[in-house]
Amino acid sequence: MSSPTSHRYLGKSRKAVDGLEKVTGRARYAGDVTLPGMLHGKLALSLYAHARIVRIDTTAARAVPGVVTVLTAADLPTRGRQPSSRQTTTLADGVARYRGEPVALVLATSLAAAEDGLAALQIDYEPLPGPTTVEAALAPDAPVIWPQGAPQADADLTAAHAAVARGEEQGEHAASNIHEQKRFSRGDALAALATADVVVEGTYRTAIVHQGYLEPHAVVADVDPIRRQITVYTSTQGQFGVRDEVARLLGLRPHQVTVVPMTVGGGFGAKYGILDPLAAAAALAVGRPVRITLDRSEDFLTTTPSPACTITLKLGANRDGALTALVADIVVDNGIYPFTLGGIMSALLGGYYRCPNVQIDVTEVLTHKPQAGAYRAPGAPQVTFALESAIDELAYRLNIDPLELRLRNAATTGDPMGNNDPWPSIGLTKVLEAAANHPLWRERSPGSGIGLAIGGWPCGMSPAAAVCRVDTDGVVRVHVGSVDISGVNSSFVLVAAEIIGVPPEQVEIVTGDTRSGPFAGPSGGSQITYSVAGAVAAAAREARRQLLEIAADMLEARIDDLDIREGMVHIRGVPGRTLPLGEVARRAQEQAGGPGPIVGEGRTAPAENAPGFVAHLVQVEVDRDTGRVKPVRYVAIQDVGFPLNPLMVEGQIHGGAAQGVGWGLYEALRYDERGELLTASLMDYTLPRAADVPPFESVLVQNPAPNGPFGARGVGEPPITAGAAAIANAIRDATGARIYELPMRDEVVWRALQEQ
Amino acid sequence: MSSPTSHRYLGKSRKAVDGLEKVTGRARYAGDVTLPGMLHGKLALSLYAHARIVRIDTTAARAVPGVVTVLTAADLPTRGRQPSSRQTTTLADGVARYRGEPVALVLATSLAAAEDGLAALQIDYEPLPGPTTVEAALAPDAPVIWPQGAPQADADLTAAHAAVARGEEQGEHAASNIHEQKRFSRGDALAALATADVVVEGTYRTAIVHQGYLEPHAVVADVDPIRRQITVYTSTQGQFGVRDEVARLLGLRPHQVTVVPMTVGGGFGAKYGILDPLAAAAALAVGRPVRITLDRSEDFLTTTPSPACTITLKLGANRDGALTALVADIVVDNGIYPFTLGGIMSALLGGYYRCPNVQIDVTEVLTHKPQAGAYRAPGAPQVTFALESAIDELAYRLNIDPLELRLRNAATTGDPMGNNDPWPSIGLTKVLEAAANHPLWRERSPGSGIGLAIGGWPCGMSPAAAVCRVDTDGVVRVHVGSVDISGVNSSFVLVAAEIIGVPPEQVEIVTGDTRSGPFAGPSGGSQITYSVAGAVAAAAREARRQLLEIAADMLEARIDDLDIREGMVHIRGVPGRTLPLGEVARRAQEQAGGPGPIVGEGRTAPAENAPGFVAHLVQVEVDRDTGRVKPVRYVAIQDVGFPLNPLMVEGQIHGGAAQGVGWGLYEALRYDERGELLTASLMDYTLPRAADVPPFESVLVQNPAPNGPFGARGVGEPPITAGAAAIANAIRDATGARIYELPMRDEVVWRALQEQ
Repeated sequence: MSSPTSHRYLGKSRKAVDGLEKVTGRARYAGDVTLPGMLHGKLALSLYAHARIVRIDTTAARAVPGVVTVLTAADLPTRGRQPSSRQTTTLADGVARYRGEPVALVLATSLAAAEDGLAALQIDYEPLPGPTTVEAALAPDAPVIWPQGAPQADADLTAAHAAVARGEEQGEHAASNIHEQKRFSRGDALAALATADVVVEGTYRTAIVHQGYLEPHAVVADVDPIRRQITVYTSTQGQFGVRDEVARLLGLRPHQVTVVPMTVGGGFGAKYGILDPLAAAAALAVGRPVRITLDRSEDFLTTTPSPACTITLKLGANRDGALTALVADIVVDNGIYPFTLGGIMSALLGGYYRCPNVQIDVTEVLTHKPQAGAYRAPGAPQVTFALESAIDELAYRLNIDPLELRLRNAATTGDPMGNNDPWPSIGLTKVLEAAANHPLWRERSPGSGIGLAIGGWPCGMSPAAAVCRVDTDGVVRVHVGSVDISGVNSSFVLVAAEIIGVPPEQVEIVTGDTRSGPFAGPSGGSQITYSVAGAVAAAAREARRQLLEIAADMLEARIDDLDIREGMVHIRGVPGRTLPLGEVARRAQEQAGGPGPIVGEGRTAPAENAPGFVAHLVQVEVDRDTGRVKPVRYVAIQDVGFPLNPLMVEGQIHGGAAQGVGWGLYEALRYDERGELLTASLMDYTLPRAADVPPFESVLVQNPAPNGPFGARGVGEPPITAGAAAIANAIRDATGARIYELPMRDEVVWRALQEQ
Repeated sequence: MSSPTSHRYLGKSRKAVDGLEKVTGRARYAGDVTLPGMLHGKLALSLYAHARIVRIDTTAARAVPGVVTVLTAADLPTRGRQPSSRQTTTLADGVARYRGEPVALVLATSLAAAEDGLAALQIDYEPLPGPTTVEAALAPDAPVIWPQGAPQADADLTAAHAAVARGEEQGEHAASNIHEQKRFSRGDALAALATADVVVEGTYRTAIVHQGYLEPHAVVADVDPIRRQITVYTSTQGQFGVRDEVARLLGLRPHQVTVVPMTVGGGFGAKYGILDPLAAAAALAVGRPVRITLDRSEDFLTTTPSPACTITLKLGANRDGALTALVADIVVDNGIYPFTLGGIMSALLGGYYRCPNVQIDVTEVLTHKPQAGAYRAPGAPQVTFALESAIDELAYRLNIDPLELRLRNAATTGDPMGNNDPWPSIGLTKVLEAAANHPLWRERSPGSGIGLAIGGWPCGMSPAAAVCRVDTDGVVRVHVGSVDISGVNSSFVLVAAEIIGVPPEQVEIVTGDTRSGPFAGPSGGSQITYSVAGAVAAAAREARRQLLEIAADMLEARIDDLDIREGMVHIRGVPGRTLPLGEVARRAQEQAGGPGPIVGEGRTAPAENAPGFVAHLVQVEVDRDTGRVKPVRYVAIQDVGFPLNPLMVEGQIHGGAAQGVGWGLYEALRYDERGELLTASLMDYTLPRAADVPPFESVLVQNPAPNGPFGARGVGEPPITAGAAAIANAIRDATGARIYELPMRDEVVWRALQEQ
């Protein structure tokens, strides 16, 4: 599909279709689902990072009025099954392996009773030794967390977020705390580095960052104990994956599980089924509906934040600025279960810029902490912080304008990524050119605290189906299987409106559950608009075809002479003869021997992804006395292909950029040496508030995706990638100090300023 | 579609898909729906057949703990709107016009509180005069019930049940209690009657009969007061019609109303939205969900039973048994609002037999009783009782075997119905031939108490859509918009299984609501299997096509060489190379650039209906001392076209025949002269119990419908039509007495025996 030059509705900003429900509190979240006989669950979370569960005495808890039962691992249909990931965990069996691991579930007729029951629950732990940090885990005498070898995930729902990448398996680590070690390389990077004109080198550290969604995890599982069927109402990014996983864990066939995706209050990669298996197992165990919701602290303790990384990076270049070597060593702290971001991190780190010689080693490490998980462009903020800081430093060393240096080396379509796969059509050069033309960059003076960084994301794709029905009141109903976590429905509405020729107000999106809805991939990897909009367009085209066929009959006109505008069928050149779509649909629906109801079915399976690149410019003020950094201007330039609904695209850019500021300046989950979480509330974990972020200006670069719907690209993930690096570069510009650690909180910056 | 001679699943009995839910109590009925904040409603029903509502004092009722409010007509968004039918009624405004008309609605936080509130509610009535019987309504000095003219229904949901028929409007009755008077005629019936060799004549009376569903009416209405959107969970036969009607009455657009059809515990024509407008209006008025359920007595008082009729019938024939004249006068008691069965009654009465001269006059009368409504083959049991009694009497007069007499005159394809439309393909002759060959008839001796009657129903049709999805576990999900009140889903499963080639256990039917589901007509008029199965078949064929296309690629074989059996794709002649459908679906769903998920869309709009005829044989024993009639054998022969799932077809025949026995021997709603219902409980209203009905033998005659799916015809309504007449004829055979009144309870039969 190409990008037509003129649209009636597409490409024009229109407010979110679900805005009214959300601002008025009418939207129904998973935690709002109430079923007859439903029990409220409260989790006992392990108090230790590693401990034997000696005894669980439920007597006092069961005696609390309203408490119905207390479940432990042995009570669940999942008993005896060793989890391989956080998503496959129900309750710890015998041993708890991180602070916050669910150990028991109190079920009561009210949440208050469940809380009282939890307070009365007696669990005796015997603390066990074990590494809680990467350093301790890699020590030669470190106790091995999984002596039999780390459990291998046989399904990894969060993998949906990250592109799959190849690398060479390195070394032997069956009985170590390293669960994966891979090398990604091309050319001879060490030799090239040795002969480079200029080398910059640094070690960059990033923190564990939480996805920070507004709505903590929540789920209600209903059960039909006779047919052994489960219905799960949940806050999820992908109902089909959750269904398959819940079924697998409970030994059911997928069709025995129905997952109903509720309104999601933010997912960002973390909502692929963390509580769902437990809620479903508990409902099966007790034969009643079960609701489990996490409060904010529980959510910090027992979910899957983004992993901390240490990246040692060396760049070599020749005098004219051409990159000649990139050597990197990435160590990732994945917590208690394997989680693998090495592939995507290497693909990006070795792919933003053309460089003939690349060697990236990734070491993925296990520790007694919660398992790491996906967070919006997983791995990208970390490697982008390292690479874009280093490139910036190289520009200083070479005395080349940092934007110019990037332009000289920027990857273009067909260049290799870090995993040596070629980039499909990309617009990195275009966003850099847009940055060069932006007044903030063009008119800047050195030392004014302005930083630049680029970033990118491959953006995913997957097959999808959609259905388009036209009702007798002229309403067009578009059925999709994708969850709207980012405003996609507000774009689908415009796609259907444009194609059929009805006002967007007349289009409704219906999100199906796994029984009633069409299939779509999960809402992760910036793939939904790219993948599903094509199916929506195909479905709308078929519905339009059917409408025109009947309308031609009703109006006694040739199909080719008809047009549909504002929900009315017109005969071209014959003013006054019009027919509302509702009447056409009614005829189709009622006429004996006619065509039958208006229904268009559309399917797509895009063959090539459409990466999205950004260039972010940020201006900061730095208080040299305190180290406090205040971002004051922020320009987010992004290749969006074509913005189906610019307001939604800008919303994604603002949100992603704000989270990038969080990565850069504020957010970190901190654990003490025993693995205790020190930042288990929003008092301690600094999510940026409105006053902590600058005003965001977005610039939409339109570099159409060859296969995207109307040229659109995925837009959700790219805007989070560059912020931390851009801020680091702005601090460097303002102060001369290079910061190597995220978040760049006051004390970090102050210390760097002191060391100058 | 023709009827293939050999099927793997179709035509073989298979148990009901929803049987387990129903017998275990897991099925969710409308009354099971519980929503947060939901209020329970209890109706104050008028105590008078006609009264001015002087005052409604809600003070004491509101003071009852738990009572939230008491609504009257003035409190509803429907205020000021004059209802035109029971379906458009919410609460009586100023005047109540029948005993049982809803006057006020008590809303409370529990049903018990609502009941207490109702008990405390003070309503002062001023009784008004007015006719409660047809005789009184037609008296020259009768008060006119609607002096301004009877309200005309601008939508008649129950019309879905009855075929539309034409007749000539007769007379003037703007200010009388006759709301319609029509004549259906051909030839010169009066002249032919005068010259006939033999004339039989009689006046037949039938009672008001209730549909007798197990589940009284129940509804829950949820409301979004901000968007003014309503969701109605209801026991309905047709969600789309209810949606349109609720929207119209509340001044909303149809898309603002979503109707979710719940499991239905019997409908039989009565569940087209009696409580839905009131529940929705109440929910809108209070801004909270509202549940209203009727208990059995309330249901008897305030719903829409089948109308009582008086049919005066004269048949003329020549010596050899050829019918020459049919003259009839039908008077129908429709209660308080117009309801029009004259057309269908005349079409059947003048259509079962070839007769060149027909004159049928229909007078539809209003009285101060609940409005009449549709009940399974509406009008047919009444006219069939008259006609089949008269034909039987004619056989005695002519001394011709009654089956032979019927065969000589039986209508065949193309003969005119009473409205002079030609019959499409019918099998009346075939069912009579099957009756002639049945041992009960062939071996009977005169006076052994065996009666025969035929009956028929045009059977409806309407356009429909269906969707067929194949999931990654191989489960085939068929989405329909029709409600299953008669086992249709248990046939659809076989249609999809047969076409795709999967075991029926692997097929699931998903019934949509008005937002999520495909469109289908209402489940009335015996149209659903006939109309929707074609859409299911088309959807399944498309899904199979897609499956084979991908499988051919996966197996590297030609599509033409593939077959699907038992859910596995085979290469013909290559044993061992098989592929489960789930894997094919997974490939479709996951392959970049592939076809996308497996989804077949099917639509149909049958162009011609396929009437169903029956011949029922019944043997009775009559106690001459008490008049008690005991049916001891019952053979129900029916042209079903092709039985997709014979067990379901037989279930329909058993159920219909049992209801026919109820018509014949037991059931009547009796009112006193003030219009008070005397039979407002199952202690007074004699629904036949298991011990009251004979064993039923069904004989399925397969006379394929030219346009039916695999030759199938509608089967729901025909089996209720003939029972009363067959029993009357059996009594005549046993005793020599002819009974002219339904139900033929002991005293009626005893009196007839005394008069011999």
